[in-house]
Amino acid sequence: MSGLTGVVACETSICSIEEGILRYRGYTIDDLAYKASFEEIIYLLWYGRLPNRLELIALKQDLTESAVLPPKIYDLLRLYAPWGNAMAKLRTCVSFLTHFDDEVMDHSFAADHRKAVRIMARMAAIVAAIERIRTDLEPIEPDAIKFSSLAEMFLWLLKGEKPEPIAVKAMDLCLVLHAEHELNASTFASRVTVSTMSDIYSGIVSAIGTLKGALHGNANEQVANMLEEIGDISRVEEYIAAKIANQERIMGFGHRVYKNGDPRAKHLKALAKELGEYSGDTRWYDMSEKIEQIVYESKGLRPNVDFYSASVYTYLGIPRDLFTLIFATSRTSGWMAHILEQHDNNKLIRPRAKYIGKKHQEWLPMEER
Amino acid sequence: MSGLTGVVACETSICSIEEGILRYRGYTIDDLAYKASFEEIIYLLWYGRLPNRLELIALKQDLTESAVLPPKIYDLLRLYAPWGNAMAKLRTCVSFLTHFDDEVMDHSFAADHRKAVRIMARMAAIVAAIERIRTDLEPIEPDAIKFSSLAEMFLWLLKGEKPEPIAVKAMDLCLVLHAEHELNASTFASRVTVSTMSDIYSGIVSAIGTLKGALHGNANEQVANMLEEIGDISRVEEYIAAKIANQERIMGFGHRVYKNGDPRAKHLKALAKELGEYSGDTRWYDMSEKIEQIVYESKGLRPNVDFYSASVYTYLGIPRDLFTLIFATSRTSGWMAHILEQHDNNKLIRPRAKYIGKKHQEWLPMEER
Ligand SMILES: CC(C)(COP(=O)(O)OP(=O)(O)OC[C@H]1O[C@@H](n2cnc3c(N)ncnc32)[C@H](O)[C@@H]1OP(=O)(O)O)[C@@H](O)C(=O)NCCC(=O)NCCS
Ligand SMILES: CC(C)(COP(=O)(O)OP(=O)(O)OC[C@H]1O[C@@H](n2cnc3c(N)ncnc32)[C@H](O)[C@@H]1OP(=O)(O)O)[C@@H](O)C(=O)NCCC(=O)NCCS
Repeated sequence: MSGLTGVVACETSICSIEEGILRYRGYTIDDLAYKASFEEIIYLLWYGRLPNRLELIALKQDLTESAVLPPKIYDLLRLYAPWGNAMAKLRTCVSFLTHFDDEVMDHSFAADHRKAVRIMARMAAIVAAIERIRTDLEPIEPDAIKFSSLAEMFLWLLKGEKPEPIAVKAMDLCLVLHAEHELNASTFASRVTVSTMSDIYSGIVSAIGTLKGALHGNANEQVANMLEEIGDISRVEEYIAAKIANQERIMGFGHRVYKNGDPRAKHLKALAKELGEYSGDTRWYDMSEKIEQIVYESKGLRPNVDFYSASVYTYLGIPRDLFTLIFATSRTSGWMAHILEQHDNNKLIRPRAKYIGKKHQEWLPMEER
Repeated sequence: MSGLTGVVACETSICSIEEGILRYRGYTIDDLAYKASFEEIIYLLWYGRLPNRLELIALKQDLTESAVLPPKIYDLLRLYAPWGNAMAKLRTCVSFLTHFDDEVMDHSFAADHRKAVRIMARMAAIVAAIERIRTDLEPIEPDAIKFSSLAEMFLWLLKGEKPEPIAVKAMDLCLVLHAEHELNASTFASRVTVSTMSDIYSGIVSAIGTLKGALHGNANEQVANMLEEIGDISRVEEYIAAKIANQERIMGFGHRVYKNGDPRAKHLKALAKELGEYSGDTRWYDMSEKIEQIVYESKGLRPNVDFYSASVYTYLGIPRDLFTLIFATSRTSGWMAHILEQHDNNKLIRPRAKYIGKKHQEWLPMEER
């Protein structure tokens, strides 16, 4: 089966990957990684250009004001067992959110963009609330606090206190790097969903469920599990050799589109190094670097976006099963851009299958089966 | 944009549409419509062959026993406003169900098939519970009753009393006809979702959100709205002429794959006629027939599966906004078959997009924007 490898499924003006170079709306990820905030990226993805100062202030304010959750979301979160799968909780909560948005079926430009802001902001608040409620802490209400950015808001709501500037900067860079990536599986799923003229929430819910898989967004959590299992740099070599001998996949390596390395990985690598040094404990970074070297030498595979982000989130003290939820929060900006683009010039996405099953069967009465 | 029209996205042994003939596992829909029960279809779709008597009895028993809902589903349903969108409620409830299934991450054949039965049965029970709770009635607990079929169970749980045999027969035929349809948009969405190695629940949730759109499963509800709006056969001609003049789509007509008519439509048409005559009121059937004639004469389009099912469900006394949920319940059998087939020989579904946006942009400092 081909998995639609290399098949063009639609046109887009949002993102390009050409000769290994990733661009959002024409700007290279290398430029954006150093210069843009996540809010500038959101604006860029949704409106096609960088915001001026006033537009950026307005968007930031809209986002943090929209983060207040309908109280029934907390009731829903209290129905869950603490140990329930966190991505499934997120998927359910976002699906449930539909019922607190009066504009679900209004597809005008203005209403769509208001929904986009609401979903973006509430997603971050839900991820934090999942953690607060399962650990028996009160969720933080975002309206009492003046946040400088969505990255700060997220960490603050998660931990209940003002985060350190270096943590905010790191979170912001992670959000920038995960924001958008052309027709990856979750984005594609969201486009298929809304191509039936289904609503934006349905599109985001499909995307969350798709990102949840180990071959896609969940790889970052698997990488962290692997690093923990290895435990020490002295064990890296043996551990990876065994995986390779068993033909197991090494999580955080390989990519459908990039065959010579993922341009996001180097920024996350530098960030993992910086945070390791800042924290005074570079063990995870050191192990990761060694894994990178061995996997490249033995399999020719390079790290993807999920490999060093596992160390970054760990240095930021984020619970491991929330890693994929942070990916989802960031990628919501890209999912949304694609959903709006799909609706803007819609055509039902409905391919065919090649039938390889049994040919014409004659009906068999019960007695003859 | 092409919408992947005619593009082969994967291989399948489940269903074929060749020269306008629809077959499940090699059996034509014309055979199945008259001879098979929905439970036989489920078995056929999941196991690739028709069940013998014992296998069928076992499956029926499994299904009705699995329909008991975790009590927290009722708590969730009570968090909703009665007027909330019913498909969004179903999407949320199925997403929530994950948390009450210990085998979500067990991908063995046996566990997958147990999950399939559970989801199938609970879906029917949830649809009924949505209706009971929003109308302030107690949900019926399925374990006290001995049902003869899923069709009977659904109607009984919905209405709180043993349904008439003709209603059960009609519901069963509807379930048979809606069960499976190759790579339609919702089925395709479910395959994209699970191709990341995400779980079955995520796949079904994506499918529900995709079916929700007006171009796909929601067309049956739109057809009913249209019939109500028209109100009388004397107004059909003028109403349809106005739609055509305004270039509006006529819901329930046209199809991506069938260009000479949908082979399911004639069975639903005959059923609508039979139920109309039985009820002594053939107004909806008569209007539908006239619409069919006019749309064919003026646009060359033929009715699809959603057109006459609107009348059938109306004759069965089912609330209009549950029509698409019944479609979802039936199609779960097909979605599940495709999800299991996808996992059986998995390859990530990840196409490319053609970039038509802005070329290389130089970064602009804030002051220059
Ligand atoms: C991302 C991914 C699914 C892309 O896969 P794809 O385009 O479908 O390509 P394939 O899975 O067919 O892989 C091609 C070959 O490389 C190998 N390969 C790819 N990624 C590998 C990995 N992480 N570890 C070991 N081998 C890998 C495959 O085994 C296959 O070898 P083969 O041709 O000998 O069978 C794949 O690289 C992978 O599973 N990576 C690990 C999960 C991950 O990190 N996902 C996050 C992506 S951002
Ligand atoms: C099902 C459907 C989305 C398939 O569409 P598709 O394969 O993408 O084909 P298109 O939408 O491009 O339609 C092809 C042409 O037929 C016309 N057409 C298709 N269905 C039509 C309908 N129901 N009413 C009026 N015109 C219709 C289109 O306007 C288009 O005409 P054009 O080429 O002059 O623009 C489409 O037929 C439709 O919207 N039907 C109504 C909704 C419905 O009943 N859906 C349930 C399907 S089971």
